[in-house]
Amino acid sequence: MAVEARFLGPSRPQTLATILAVSGGEGTGDPQRLFKGVASLSSATLGDVSFCESRSYAKALAESRAGLILVTADLASHVPSSALVVVCASASLAFGQVAALFHPPRRPAGTIHPSAVIHPDALIGEGTEIGPMAVIEAGAQIGRDCMIGPFALVGAEVVVGDGCTLHNHCSVHHAVLGKGVVLHAGARIGQEGFGFAMDAQGRFVTAPQLGSVILGDGVEVGANSCVDRGSLGDTVLGPGTRLDNLVQVGHNVRTGRGCVLVAQVGISGSTNLGDYVSLGGQAGVSGHLHIGSKARIAAQAGVIKNVPPGFEMMGSPATPKLDAMRATLALQRLGAASRRPSKPDAD
Amino acid sequence: MAVEARFLGPSRPQTLATILAVSGGEGTGDPQRLFKGVASLSSATLGDVSFCESRSYAKALAESRAGLILVTADLASHVPSSALVVVCASASLAFGQVAALFHPPRRPAGTIHPSAVIHPDALIGEGTEIGPMAVIEAGAQIGRDCMIGPFALVGAEVVVGDGCTLHNHCSVHHAVLGKGVVLHAGARIGQEGFGFAMDAQGRFVTAPQLGSVILGDGVEVGANSCVDRGSLGDTVLGPGTRLDNLVQVGHNVRTGRGCVLVAQVGISGSTNLGDYVSLGGQAGVSGHLHIGSKARIAAQAGVIKNVPPGFEMMGSPATPKLDAMRATLALQRLGAASRRPSKPDAD
Amino acid sequence: MAVEARFLGPSRPQTLATILAVSGGEGTGDPQRLFKGVASLSSATLGDVSFCESRSYAKALAESRAGLILVTADLASHVPSSALVVVCASASLAFGQVAALFHPPRRPAGTIHPSAVIHPDALIGEGTEIGPMAVIEAGAQIGRDCMIGPFALVGAEVVVGDGCTLHNHCSVHHAVLGKGVVLHAGARIGQEGFGFAMDAQGRFVTAPQLGSVILGDGVEVGANSCVDRGSLGDTVLGPGTRLDNLVQVGHNVRTGRGCVLVAQVGISGSTNLGDYVSLGGQAGVSGHLHIGSKARIAAQAGVIKNVPPGFEMMGSPATPKLDAMRATLALQRLGAASRRPSKPDAD
Repeated sequence: MAVEARFLGPSRPQTLATILAVSGGEGTGDPQRLFKGVASLSSATLGDVSFCESRSYAKALAESRAGLILVTADLASHVPSSALVVVCASASLAFGQVAALFHPPRRPAGTIHPSAVIHPDALIGEGTEIGPMAVIEAGAQIGRDCMIGPFALVGAEVVVGDGCTLHNHCSVHHAVLGKGVVLHAGARIGQEGFGFAMDAQGRFVTAPQLGSVILGDGVEVGANSCVDRGSLGDTVLGPGTRLDNLVQVGHNVRTGRGCVLVAQVGISGSTNLGDYVSLGGQAGVSGHLHIGSKARIAAQAGVIKNVPPGFEMMGSPATPKLDAMRATLALQRLGAASRRPSKPDAD
Repeated sequence: MAVEARFLGPSRPQTLATILAVSGGEGTGDPQRLFKGVASLSSATLGDVSFCESRSYAKALAESRAGLILVTADLASHVPSSALVVVCASASLAFGQVAALFHPPRRPAGTIHPSAVIHPDALIGEGTEIGPMAVIEAGAQIGRDCMIGPFALVGAEVVVGDGCTLHNHCSVHHAVLGKGVVLHAGARIGQEGFGFAMDAQGRFVTAPQLGSVILGDGVEVGANSCVDRGSLGDTVLGPGTRLDNLVQVGHNVRTGRGCVLVAQVGISGSTNLGDYVSLGGQAGVSGHLHIGSKARIAAQAGVIKNVPPGFEMMGSPATPKLDAMRATLALQRLGAASRRPSKPDAD
Repeated sequence: MAVEARFLGPSRPQTLATILAVSGGEGTGDPQRLFKGVASLSSATLGDVSFCESRSYAKALAESRAGLILVTADLASHVPSSALVVVCASASLAFGQVAALFHPPRRPAGTIHPSAVIHPDALIGEGTEIGPMAVIEAGAQIGRDCMIGPFALVGAEVVVGDGCTLHNHCSVHHAVLGKGVVLHAGARIGQEGFGFAMDAQGRFVTAPQLGSVILGDGVEVGANSCVDRGSLGDTVLGPGTRLDNLVQVGHNVRTGRGCVLVAQVGISGSTNLGDYVSLGGQAGVSGHLHIGSKARIAAQAGVIKNVPPGFEMMGSPATPKLDAMRATLALQRLGAASRRPSKPDAD
């Protein structure tokens, strides 16, 4: 299916020369040849740029009618002769860079919608666009060239760096955001964490949550995800860290740079992640743990112990990946061996 | 407990004749006998219609004081003599149909609240109601007889079919909605998916997310659930597909018709579901998989391989249900056999 | 790191006498000695009050430069001599109480923002503050001294007790809230549950969801969490029950008092929880079950059977904790024993 022109508007044609320059790829052809758009392998036509980053799409690659295909070197020989081959270090990276030429992201318009409620003490940087029904509270400081979407809430004294995008319905309190931070729709930043103690009468007493949230440059938080503020001290997401949708980050969690938390991950309070830690979808990490840099936690894993740097963990409770795979295999054998039980299994 | 009249308003009394006609059930009695409302087995009185759809409620059925009870044939003999028995093919379906007689859903009023912000280029169909603080952006097309709730956002160029309900605080971008679609509070449709690649300097570069979302007729999306738009091509939910609350659907996912995703399910990018696939609560499916029609995935299962049509899968990683049950049983036996370990287990 | 003064404003200095009185702790020193604030063990200086509630922080305790440290009796001997020791029954409870002296929670201002949309039939109690862009529908009754945040929606006929806090972007329908209820940002209370039946043509027909939600005194619901209203009868959260972020509570669920549901927990419809039940993060409970009082469900557990009072359950499917730990251990041994399989494991 071709790119949905209804939402994107017309694409901006690009020359081969520009495509090669931006992608850093290598290919041969008329530098002035124009391409009109980008498309997937199966929907592209001769005027389109496409890409293939995995052998598992080799069939679609071989059958593609795209005019130019970005690939890594190992896939170059599979590109059909109708297409110009451009070899890149990373086809998906190159495609992203090239696609942004055809469909540059919308720039902030520098306008403030009359329905927005902006406290007179708030500071709004030059070029920043504020959408309908946004609320900016007292003392908030928003940098230059930001986009603040409809129904976004920037709480009192919050600091938003230059070039941030706060999508619709998100809310930010008690937080300092670096440059280029993106909060997707409905993200919740800086609310009270889950902290309380039981008194002598068996009632829960809320502990004041006195800390804040610090989001490093380029942090992205997915739709409807939650990052609680610190109880004492701060909750910190390091530069470039990306959270998918519906992720939960508890109070006082700290991550290094470039961590990746896939959808529905949960990190309990006071846990520390190093740099470039990745967590698969629905994985959970208990509180007060240390997860070493470049550790990789599989989807649905449940981490209840510290994880050394670089370890791959799997299962609930999580163990090193190879152990988890062996245990799973052993269990499946054991189950198979019990196929003729003395009493029949229910179904 | 009786139905909460505070929120529903008075119920509209119905005759036995109407109840039989609408439910398609069979029962004997004065066709003009009036019933005043609906209630659960335990709270119903002689003027109420109730229902029982499962033997596990046989005791409540036998003790009920309801005036009319909708049941399947196998439960008819358990209905107390004080109640009129109406036998239906599906008691829960019949009860839903009958309950809607007593408490018809509110119809759109055709009014537009003065606080709503509607772009002059947007098209709003006849009979459509737009609530306070809604925002409708440029080029949006909303069909007839829709209800757009408070704080709902309909993004630029979005198409909403006739008879849709967009509840409060939901947001829709880059999307085309069929007829009778329901988005519950805080649902997020059409935001950017989780797509990026790492550049040579170790920084993540966002891949433009150029696709859109297509929701078929009658699709329902639960509160605070998220459906990302396609990266290239579209994310598609087939007609009648229903998502419960807090569900995550990644970019380029496609489902057939009538799929059911229970709360907190997550589907990773580019996975395809056939028709009438069901996923239990908190189940997860990896990306780029095919799940065959009528497959049933158990709660908390983790699917990492393609699933043939009609298969029932269970466990993490998911295996066919019978295998998973055998493995679980074998494991429990193994654990029990280790009850006197050489060193005591911690607790 | 010191408490973030930017968001909290200056702390209010407190005397030792007040600290002892409020915490109920025991300690010796000049009753008029003033402390200026609260801080974590590692960031506190001589003017600060800190606390230690666990031996796992013994090192940080021994090295702390705090002026006063709240501890339980067993940790008193580990407090450095530079600090005044105050011994309490619960250090975290005492610290919460003391921290609230230095940083009292903001009180409602009794003001109504001019941008709020309040139906003329709604009743608003004295002292209640209503923030920008809030919407209060017809017939809603809001008690005294409440705080209604920006973009909050209080639906028609909803009752909100005295002293409640409804944070930004939350929505409440078909619900009666007791006193001191707290709804965090984006919480969804009272939307339709996930109820439908398939008709003879294979289409899903929504069952009218006729019940409501009752939240007891002091209930707290976390950010972006969802509590569906009852289908018939009500969904009920007992007094003092606390839900963390992104929790799902299905229709007709009932909890006793003081239950604790950690982030991303899901409870299916019609399940009953006793008093003081706790569920760890990402745990799930099937529908129509009974979970006895003081039962403890571990993180990521999947409960598919009734649980007696006081039981600790673990695993998916959940079994008693000791059984689950034995099974896990047995499985790990089994996996280890298979380390030299006849064909190599994939990695």
